[in-house]
Amino acid sequence: MRTIDWDEEKSCIIIIDQTALPDKMAVMDICSLEALQEAILKLRVRGAPALGAAGAFGVALLARTIPPMMLPDFVVELKAGAERLKRTRPTAVNLSWGVERTLSRALAGRDIEEITALALREAKAVADDDVARCRAIGENGARLLRDGDTVMTHCNAGRLACVDWGTALGVVRSAIAEGKRVSVIACETRPLNQGSRITARELMDDGIPVTLIADSMSGYVMRNCHVDAVIVGADRIVEDAVFNKIGTYNHAVIAKAHNVPLYVAAPLSTFDFARREKDVVIEQRDPDELRRCGGRPTAPADVPALNPAFDATPMEYVTAIITELGVFRPPLDFGQLRQKLKI
Amino acid sequence: MRTIDWDEEKSCIIIIDQTALPDKMAVMDICSLEALQEAILKLRVRGAPALGAAGAFGVALLARTIPPMMLPDFVVELKAGAERLKRTRPTAVNLSWGVERTLSRALAGRDIEEITALALREAKAVADDDVARCRAIGENGARLLRDGDTVMTHCNAGRLACVDWGTALGVVRSAIAEGKRVSVIACETRPLNQGSRITARELMDDGIPVTLIADSMSGYVMRNCHVDAVIVGADRIVEDAVFNKIGTYNHAVIAKAHNVPLYVAAPLSTFDFARREKDVVIEQRDPDELRRCGGRPTAPADVPALNPAFDATPMEYVTAIITELGVFRPPLDFGQLRQKLKI
Repeated sequence: MRTIDWDEEKSCIIIIDQTALPDKMAVMDICSLEALQEAILKLRVRGAPALGAAGAFGVALLARTIPPMMLPDFVVELKAGAERLKRTRPTAVNLSWGVERTLSRALAGRDIEEITALALREAKAVADDDVARCRAIGENGARLLRDGDTVMTHCNAGRLACVDWGTALGVVRSAIAEGKRVSVIACETRPLNQGSRITARELMDDGIPVTLIADSMSGYVMRNCHVDAVIVGADRIVEDAVFNKIGTYNHAVIAKAHNVPLYVAAPLSTFDFARREKDVVIEQRDPDELRRCGGRPTAPADVPALNPAFDATPMEYVTAIITELGVFRPPLDFGQLRQKLKI
Repeated sequence: MRTIDWDEEKSCIIIIDQTALPDKMAVMDICSLEALQEAILKLRVRGAPALGAAGAFGVALLARTIPPMMLPDFVVELKAGAERLKRTRPTAVNLSWGVERTLSRALAGRDIEEITALALREAKAVADDDVARCRAIGENGARLLRDGDTVMTHCNAGRLACVDWGTALGVVRSAIAEGKRVSVIACETRPLNQGSRITARELMDDGIPVTLIADSMSGYVMRNCHVDAVIVGADRIVEDAVFNKIGTYNHAVIAKAHNVPLYVAAPLSTFDFARREKDVVIEQRDPDELRRCGGRPTAPADVPALNPAFDATPMEYVTAIITELGVFRPPLDFGQLRQKLKI
């Protein structure tokens, strides 16, 4: 099944609950805006592209769950709920993008019934689009990989971060689909271990060779083993930096020191043409995520701890950005890029 | 109490069992060579200087636990046990150093009783020496810190890595003892979390301000916060590299990119004048340490994983090495250094 989808029978969102990994592949119904917000906050559904679909399905769900009222009040309610949903995780731009795209299409409807139907149709289109975009990212990125390459990745920019196929891991899947042998080194990605719990699981399920390392081993591996490329996803791309899972910047600096290319694989919905690095607020998460691991304390309960969810990698460390419309090599001129892509 | 000591009443080694941290400060009797090897392998006692004392007390314990036999057989047994002890952890040079220093002094004895007594006397001298050396390292290093500095450290090169006071954290303690305000950023140090379990605990116990981060956050912190120096310990120092806990090399590369000095604080017993980086074998530990955290699986049970205990940081990344006999700035000429220090 897809990472996130619409259950026609139950008229609700259905997700793979990623907090249950690597133990089991648990499926969860999401039947209210509050349940969706909880699922996003707890990272039951995570990954920038999947959050785009979550935003879209969230608007569809919201339209269905607003109690009976007059049209103007309904629109006010729908917009207010959409705002709350957008604010659930501030750094990943795709959530807002999915909410806004779906809301604006839905509001073309003339009555509540039509708005509700349009919202669901648009949400499904967002999800289908995401799969197609990931396939295109994969094909564009696969050209950068050779037979026998070893790719290091951080966090999970795979099938489970998207609706299907994946961005960074989509590139690996597409290269393998073309007949190239590619293996992956997965960084575990503390504090929430998306690399060890999710990336390792989905690659093993697909029979793709994967080796797990601690985040702190990336330098050791680049110096002593062979790494042909680092490929990561992105949560927000601005003209001067890539925001992605905390730890990406460390790997970027180390990759540069070892002349290993760093590729960022992400759909264009991840691009934020309006901001620069300094304008983006990085989400700070509960320090307890760092004080504990596997449910048990690994630090004194009262030690102060930092827990930024993301870091910013300046564009000078990025070799290329792989999108569904092509591969772009920094420095980027966002004005020119928008003209060229007509977006 | 000291991290490792001799219990006169029970005639055995007594240690703080560091695997019980941060939950509790558990004390453990070590009454056989096998128990000592287990404690070293499981990292109940760890840290290069503490392993020096463990090697020394190990020889004293061994002499006491060899069954009655003739002197020549006793010497053979003692040497064989000492060899086994040295091989328990191959990368940290201090273990061998402590074993050899104690064994050679003990073998000056004319009979079993005298050998046994000399071994214990020497082991106690090694432990007392370690405390004095750490104090000297602290004083030499404290001159490099200013009032208000923030120091980043990795793993635990503190009181609990030594007999007392610490090397990297000894520098911090000595600076604070001189009246400087110094705060510490502690990297958690996956996979065994010596930073979060041990460094955070011992600094909080001493009232030294400490903030915990994930190992992957060092770049974020150097770029967005303020770090005046990275100070780490060492497990083995050769002419061209410093071997220390896995992850040190990552921080070293990132520190250099941010013009943050990297100091290595270690006693001269950590210097290996006979080898270069290429000659040193890095201990590879059980991959399950990486597949699990806090006793629970954080990765598929059968995913291949790398788990090197150490990495090598080339000397060009090291700003200075802080020893009990002074501060040395690379490039190092080991021949000249030995002449100068008369060692």
